[in-house]
Amino acid sequence: MRHADEYMESLKEMVPNVYMGGEVLNRSEVPGNDILCATFDLAHLPENDGIFTATSHLSGEKINRFCNIHQSVDDLLKKQEMTRIGARTVGGCIARCMGIDALNALSVITKQCDMAHNTEYHDRFLAYIENFQKNDTVGCCAQTDVKGDRSLRPGDQADPDLYLRVVERRSDGIVVRGAKAHNSFAPLAEEIIVTPTRFLRENEKDWAVAFAVPGDAKGVKLVVRAAKHRDRMPELAGLLSGKGECESLTIFDDVFVPWERVFLCGENEFGGQLAVLFALFHRHSYTGCKPAITDMLMGTAALVAEYSGIEREDHVRSKLAEFITTAELVYGCGQAAAYKSVKTPSGTMMPDMVYCNVARKHAGECLFHEYNLLADIAGGLPATLPYDTEFTSPEVGELVQKYLKRKDGVSVEDIYKCYAWIADFTCSSMAGVLQYAGLHGGGSPIMEDIAILGTYDIESKKEIARKLAGITKK
Amino acid sequence: MRHADEYMESLKEMVPNVYMGGEVLNRSEVPGNDILCATFDLAHLPENDGIFTATSHLSGEKINRFCNIHQSVDDLLKKQEMTRIGARTVGGCIARCMGIDALNALSVITKQCDMAHNTEYHDRFLAYIENFQKNDTVGCCAQTDVKGDRSLRPGDQADPDLYLRVVERRSDGIVVRGAKAHNSFAPLAEEIIVTPTRFLRENEKDWAVAFAVPGDAKGVKLVVRAAKHRDRMPELAGLLSGKGECESLTIFDDVFVPWERVFLCGENEFGGQLAVLFALFHRHSYTGCKPAITDMLMGTAALVAEYSGIEREDHVRSKLAEFITTAELVYGCGQAAAYKSVKTPSGTMMPDMVYCNVARKHAGECLFHEYNLLADIAGGLPATLPYDTEFTSPEVGELVQKYLKRKDGVSVEDIYKCYAWIADFTCSSMAGVLQYAGLHGGGSPIMEDIAILGTYDIESKKEIARKLAGITKK
Amino acid sequence: MRHADEYMESLKEMVPNVYMGGEVLNRSEVPGNDILCATFDLAHLPENDGIFTATSHLSGEKINRFCNIHQSVDDLLKKQEMTRIGARTVGGCIARCMGIDALNALSVITKQCDMAHNTEYHDRFLAYIENFQKNDTVGCCAQTDVKGDRSLRPGDQADPDLYLRVVERRSDGIVVRGAKAHNSFAPLAEEIIVTPTRFLRENEKDWAVAFAVPGDAKGVKLVVRAAKHRDRMPELAGLLSGKGECESLTIFDDVFVPWERVFLCGENEFGGQLAVLFALFHRHSYTGCKPAITDMLMGTAALVAEYSGIEREDHVRSKLAEFITTAELVYGCGQAAAYKSVKTPSGTMMPDMVYCNVARKHAGECLFHEYNLLADIAGGLPATLPYDTEFTSPEVGELVQKYLKRKDGVSVEDIYKCYAWIADFTCSSMAGVLQYAGLHGGGSPIMEDIAILGTYDIESKKEIARKLAGITKK
Amino acid sequence: MRHADEYMESLKEMVPNVYMGGEVLNRSEVPGNDILCATFDLAHLPENDGIFTATSHLSGEKINRFCNIHQSVDDLLKKQEMTRIGARTVGGCIARCMGIDALNALSVITKQCDMAHNTEYHDRFLAYIENFQKNDTVGCCAQTDVKGDRSLRPGDQADPDLYLRVVERRSDGIVVRGAKAHNSFAPLAEEIIVTPTRFLRENEKDWAVAFAVPGDAKGVKLVVRAAKHRDRMPELAGLLSGKGECESLTIFDDVFVPWERVFLCGENEFGGQLAVLFALFHRHSYTGCKPAITDMLMGTAALVAEYSGIEREDHVRSKLAEFITTAELVYGCGQAAAYKSVKTPSGTMMPDMVYCNVARKHAGECLFHEYNLLADIAGGLPATLPYDTEFTSPEVGELVQKYLKRKDGVSVEDIYKCYAWIADFTCSSMAGVLQYAGLHGGGSPIMEDIAILGTYDIESKKEIARKLAGITKK
Repeated sequence: MRHADEYMESLKEMVPNVYMGGEVLNRSEVPGNDILCATFDLAHLPENDGIFTATSHLSGEKINRFCNIHQSVDDLLKKQEMTRIGARTVGGCIARCMGIDALNALSVITKQCDMAHNTEYHDRFLAYIENFQKNDTVGCCAQTDVKGDRSLRPGDQADPDLYLRVVERRSDGIVVRGAKAHNSFAPLAEEIIVTPTRFLRENEKDWAVAFAVPGDAKGVKLVVRAAKHRDRMPELAGLLSGKGECESLTIFDDVFVPWERVFLCGENEFGGQLAVLFALFHRHSYTGCKPAITDMLMGTAALVAEYSGIEREDHVRSKLAEFITTAELVYGCGQAAAYKSVKTPSGTMMPDMVYCNVARKHAGECLFHEYNLLADIAGGLPATLPYDTEFTSPEVGELVQKYLKRKDGVSVEDIYKCYAWIADFTCSSMAGVLQYAGLHGGGSPIMEDIAILGTYDIESKKEIARKLAGITKK
Repeated sequence: MRHADEYMESLKEMVPNVYMGGEVLNRSEVPGNDILCATFDLAHLPENDGIFTATSHLSGEKINRFCNIHQSVDDLLKKQEMTRIGARTVGGCIARCMGIDALNALSVITKQCDMAHNTEYHDRFLAYIENFQKNDTVGCCAQTDVKGDRSLRPGDQADPDLYLRVVERRSDGIVVRGAKAHNSFAPLAEEIIVTPTRFLRENEKDWAVAFAVPGDAKGVKLVVRAAKHRDRMPELAGLLSGKGECESLTIFDDVFVPWERVFLCGENEFGGQLAVLFALFHRHSYTGCKPAITDMLMGTAALVAEYSGIEREDHVRSKLAEFITTAELVYGCGQAAAYKSVKTPSGTMMPDMVYCNVARKHAGECLFHEYNLLADIAGGLPATLPYDTEFTSPEVGELVQKYLKRKDGVSVEDIYKCYAWIADFTCSSMAGVLQYAGLHGGGSPIMEDIAILGTYDIESKKEIARKLAGITKK
Repeated sequence: MRHADEYMESLKEMVPNVYMGGEVLNRSEVPGNDILCATFDLAHLPENDGIFTATSHLSGEKINRFCNIHQSVDDLLKKQEMTRIGARTVGGCIARCMGIDALNALSVITKQCDMAHNTEYHDRFLAYIENFQKNDTVGCCAQTDVKGDRSLRPGDQADPDLYLRVVERRSDGIVVRGAKAHNSFAPLAEEIIVTPTRFLRENEKDWAVAFAVPGDAKGVKLVVRAAKHRDRMPELAGLLSGKGECESLTIFDDVFVPWERVFLCGENEFGGQLAVLFALFHRHSYTGCKPAITDMLMGTAALVAEYSGIEREDHVRSKLAEFITTAELVYGCGQAAAYKSVKTPSGTMMPDMVYCNVARKHAGECLFHEYNLLADIAGGLPATLPYDTEFTSPEVGELVQKYLKRKDGVSVEDIYKCYAWIADFTCSSMAGVLQYAGLHGGGSPIMEDIAILGTYDIESKKEIARKLAGITKK
Repeated sequence: MRHADEYMESLKEMVPNVYMGGEVLNRSEVPGNDILCATFDLAHLPENDGIFTATSHLSGEKINRFCNIHQSVDDLLKKQEMTRIGARTVGGCIARCMGIDALNALSVITKQCDMAHNTEYHDRFLAYIENFQKNDTVGCCAQTDVKGDRSLRPGDQADPDLYLRVVERRSDGIVVRGAKAHNSFAPLAEEIIVTPTRFLRENEKDWAVAFAVPGDAKGVKLVVRAAKHRDRMPELAGLLSGKGECESLTIFDDVFVPWERVFLCGENEFGGQLAVLFALFHRHSYTGCKPAITDMLMGTAALVAEYSGIEREDHVRSKLAEFITTAELVYGCGQAAAYKSVKTPSGTMMPDMVYCNVARKHAGECLFHEYNLLADIAGGLPATLPYDTEFTSPEVGELVQKYLKRKDGVSVEDIYKCYAWIADFTCSSMAGVLQYAGLHGGGSPIMEDIAILGTYDIESKKEIARKLAGITKK
């Protein structure tokens, strides 16, 4: 298992292809690298052993769990737990699950495709993942195509590149063209795992393609935006002051992929299944990270309520119970999804489809309301808090501190830090990104509906109704 | 394991002490006995083997699971599954879980009390439950005291009997006085298990009492109300036509209880724990029966949508997804509660407190909305459906049938039965009882909040917030 | 203005054509007649003068406002106020607004049709309404066709009668055939006003028909179901004990209508407008009666909270504020709808479309939640309350009374009456009817969406967005 | 009526006492001045005549309505309309209502205080407002004290200055000390109107003080934070690019106020009334500006739905209907509040308390959900949109534009501008400020509950319940 500094070294050596703010950035300058670093640091802490670490089913070695292919119920339970702990430690998205979720999906689908088509994707995949684990690689998943006109299928777009596709098949590999949107933390990934975004028809084989490329492969261009927490003076800074995250529009401008890195190419029926399966693994990860966001919201609400002396008030307690209920419904269903997981022919465990989706859907539907709850308890100050420059100013600092004082026993610095954190967490561009991510990440609410309705046995429920109504089915 | 007719024979032989509508009823006439009969019938079906049956940890015999003391995770999972299947088969409350939930709670607490006080309750309990299992007994749980003035504690009431209490201690047993409200299906139980309803103080030992008496013990009086589905002509009847359920105010008018049936008497600190623990086991049962209610609502919604030709419409599909989400969040968390159960000193498995409570709370909070969803899809007809007498009337029957016709391929009788079922299920006094039961049964929403907040580690969440805010705790 | 006994006399003399429970009923036996009687009684009370009474714009006489054609903003404000007072006085639907809402719609549309087609409907209408006002007639509105297969238009049904239509045009009148569903209180109306239910095309002129017939006209058959409050002993009875309401499937089995009672016949474009306009006037009435239902729910919640000693608790106060907010948002918007009403060419005032619809929609969406709130505050007793027979029984009455006692200063009879009322109001078949009526009456939620989206100027809102975004429209 | 440039000149001449980011700013540099400028510009547009202008009841001159004391129902209706138009024109808070809302409250209370105490506040007020109108002054309202320990009253705080108070009474005026929080747009106001924040007791007369001071009066210090929309290249800029708003902690460090500017000093019972009354007028303003926010959200949702080709989908239409319903319920109730306003002894019209409060409460409760709706329709792009620098970059600009293309007929620039606007509006620090302002501005949700419950006649509703239950009140 690598250490954070080794990862940072590796980042620095990558070819610069990250475009942001009119510049080409070295990856070590990209906001969010501290989060990836944490995924290394956390794995080395003794108390996280077995949670942030796993045993490779290939090498038998101890590996970072963010590189693991789940072999058991316990693997899925631990992945969920790791995600919750990790996310609330870094104060948001833990950034490294997308890659491994995609690889688990590939593990299942490459095997199934081989069984159906006599292809050899699974062996390629095993070779790839063995290396990935050995190097403790950071991967991301590029799934969502830019999609152009939403009412048209890939092949019917004015520009066929609006869904990423194979433009050339060569003896040594393929050439791909297209762009993937909403590619969180892509500039900080060493490997980009690419999967299709939707079901594909017989005549859409060119779009049924999955592969992995180094983040700085020739022709890959990452167009990036970032959000950052406000930078504050050290004496008033929170853990995340000045830190941030990044989002990429990842462009594949005729990128060559050698065959050993191609995991699907033309088997259209498995394109859709791969899309669904990545979503499934990723929604299971959300049953870990969304409760972590709620942990942060609830802990912050409880803290500011304590500082304001309203912690025992009925309406505050009722709101805390709401936070707990949301967090634990989602987490509990994620656990049920692990317990009800099934072993696929590849040996990889697949979590339960319905539990993952209802949990993810519920988390997404509650999120804005949870921000509302915290804002309600916090009052207006997160939106009007004076800056650190005034808190410490020779001219007005003393007055500012005089007037921000609350109850005895809590220092005005702690009051300030608490509100500064709430401002950063809930009244900032970072808050906006977290809200959008919480709503759409891993699939918009309507996508969970589709997954649920496509899986669930509604007919058996109608049969219950018919029996009770005394109706004998024709 | 008994059969339903044996149970009915046993009921008939009980001393009549059921007061309803100005009469004293024989128990075999009390609405709801078909539901209890179903708990016997279902246990004899081959497909339910291992679900509705269990192996006694005392005798090693196969027993009806409604008599089982849970020894394993699997026992709790099966109990939950049995409850869901049972409830949706009988079209509502399965009626037999209250008794066994109380007995499981007693199993835990009698042991703990013995360990603390050198009492011998657990042995008494084991003797009692052995017999209970052998006889395949139907029990109910009388917990909720009538409580008088809600702002006063038991000992402070104008009338101390407003919480059930010991009024006499004798060498051969005790005499108790008081009344228990909301005692569902009590007239159909052969045994009444009595537990305290709240935490009790040092000076409230007389109220810290738990015991079991036969339903027709001297001094026990059941004051009963019932709700029934409308009776319909056989050719238009649903499964539940004419059937119903019953609720009892169970009065203990100086009832003698021999010591071998006394399971707590004066150890006040265990009174409250017993109350909480019955609630816990019962809320776990709700994670089975509430999804069953949702199964019925969703199946009915899907059926009437099919009959109306709107099954594929977006808003209908979105509502079906809502039903599924509610059902499976609750059921999934109930499963997590079983998987995370812990073995108590008595050997009895105790499901997880937080998962049981958040699941029960969520189910209760969604219930009225679910009725709203079904009513929305069904349209106004459940409230305005002509009677069977007019549907079949020589004078207007032909016209009524002409005008109730919907789409081709569905007979007007099936249309009628479908709407008659919806009327009975959602627009009737039975619907009212199910709504109240779904909201308050096993504890009102606020009780779950109290249980959750009393159990959950909010401080560790505040610590997360402090770390992120950069606050070092004093 | 008539008195209630005159109305009852008139009912008794009508030809019996009311089919219920296998019998043909005399109208004086039909549940709900007390409600119609109240509409007469209330108009004679001095404190209701000007609210329940109006001045006819035709005769200049004082008339019952339930016969009035609105001439001013004040007329609409008073109608709304009358409806709120009336509904909460009779404990539910005031039953007489449907007829007058239909007549106001006819007043507008007959004029507009005459202007477009040189027809003479408006004069006929004026002659009809003048008589209607003079006789203080009770009318109802039969609008909703039974509709058969929902995916087919009227003319495409297997049976063309599934939407009511003209089957014969004669020199002295027309013959109509069909059936109208959900025809609340129709058996208690002396006149049935019939309007189309939807927009109609050029080739659907036969379905574009509006007219009035006496409730007992030849060929009219009312197939009725009723719901009633439980009958209780006089000493424990509430105001509505034993009273109820009725719903009719009203069949027109080749009914002849003389021309002077025909108000639309073949002008298809006005068929849809008439449907919309009746809905508009009726939704405005709902801005009066829905707040009345909330008044009842909130008053009951406050009363039972008082009796339970929890009136000052935070969560109760917060729920009361919710009730108030719902009631007054709906009522306030109904007032705005009156203030923003416009005078149509007929002189009749038409309330604002958007305000009526958003208010009705909001009321419908909140209703089940409001029942939830009351049930939450009331606890489980409404579903388990012993019967009056046991409350007064020589054998157990004393015990029942002992154990239903609550706080000092409230008699056990008042406790009982309060819970008996809650049981009747919220846990009964009447409750089911009120819930369905509150959701679907005057148009299901989706119909308000359609009305709102069809009326509202969304384009101007998009223009606001474009301006802010810096987009110059092509 | 002044023009914007005159106002800007006046700002520039004010003494610099605005502290932000470690600097002392000249007011002309403070973000948000464009919004105040708009309040002048809009009043000069012919189409706004009578809406943004009014006739002074003192001078008879045409004045900017933001300086008007409401004399009629129409004044209140026009104020509401002006607020809605203004807010959606400037893309958020219109910034100038706080001052005039406070002045209207003072108009009422100074008169009532004079009547009770023979004081001469109202004449002082009239002199002040006459000048205010003549000069077309921009005022703000400083109400919310910093409050220290929330569980202690003003006089019981460790530091009595935590509520602003009179520290010295002199022959020529008073000296005040304290600080007011959440003082929106204060640095851009020429006059600061100060009112108490809560009910005050007999022994809290020093805190019962109201007055006006110039924004740059000696001892006044504005500690300011600001939020700004992202600055974008002119060719991709929206209307608000680079613009923002500001919030002040306004400190009164022993500020002298001459008597002619003191409007309350020691009459404690009117302190609380003044607090309530400012809230009332301000909540009425919210019934204008909150619908404006919804106009923006709904227009933006409809626009992005159009660009994505999903405008006709059921779920989008249903969401648009939700926006409309929220906007018009709030606006309609605000209108009802104007129509039901009453004339106070001062001649000033006071809007209806209940309608204002339920409308404001509803708006506040829906706000986060409305952001949720828009984010749902918009998809994830607002959180991941590439910067303008990359959109136009020589290296990747062409590719970015290729991959942001959507349906034919909409230029990629317009797509970009649309999403850039959504990002600024909903995924930014400005969005956070708008969310907090929408929740807490004019009073937190719980404050509306208190206002509603303090005003509403719940007893009459209990009487309705008693009558229906058959209970005769003792």
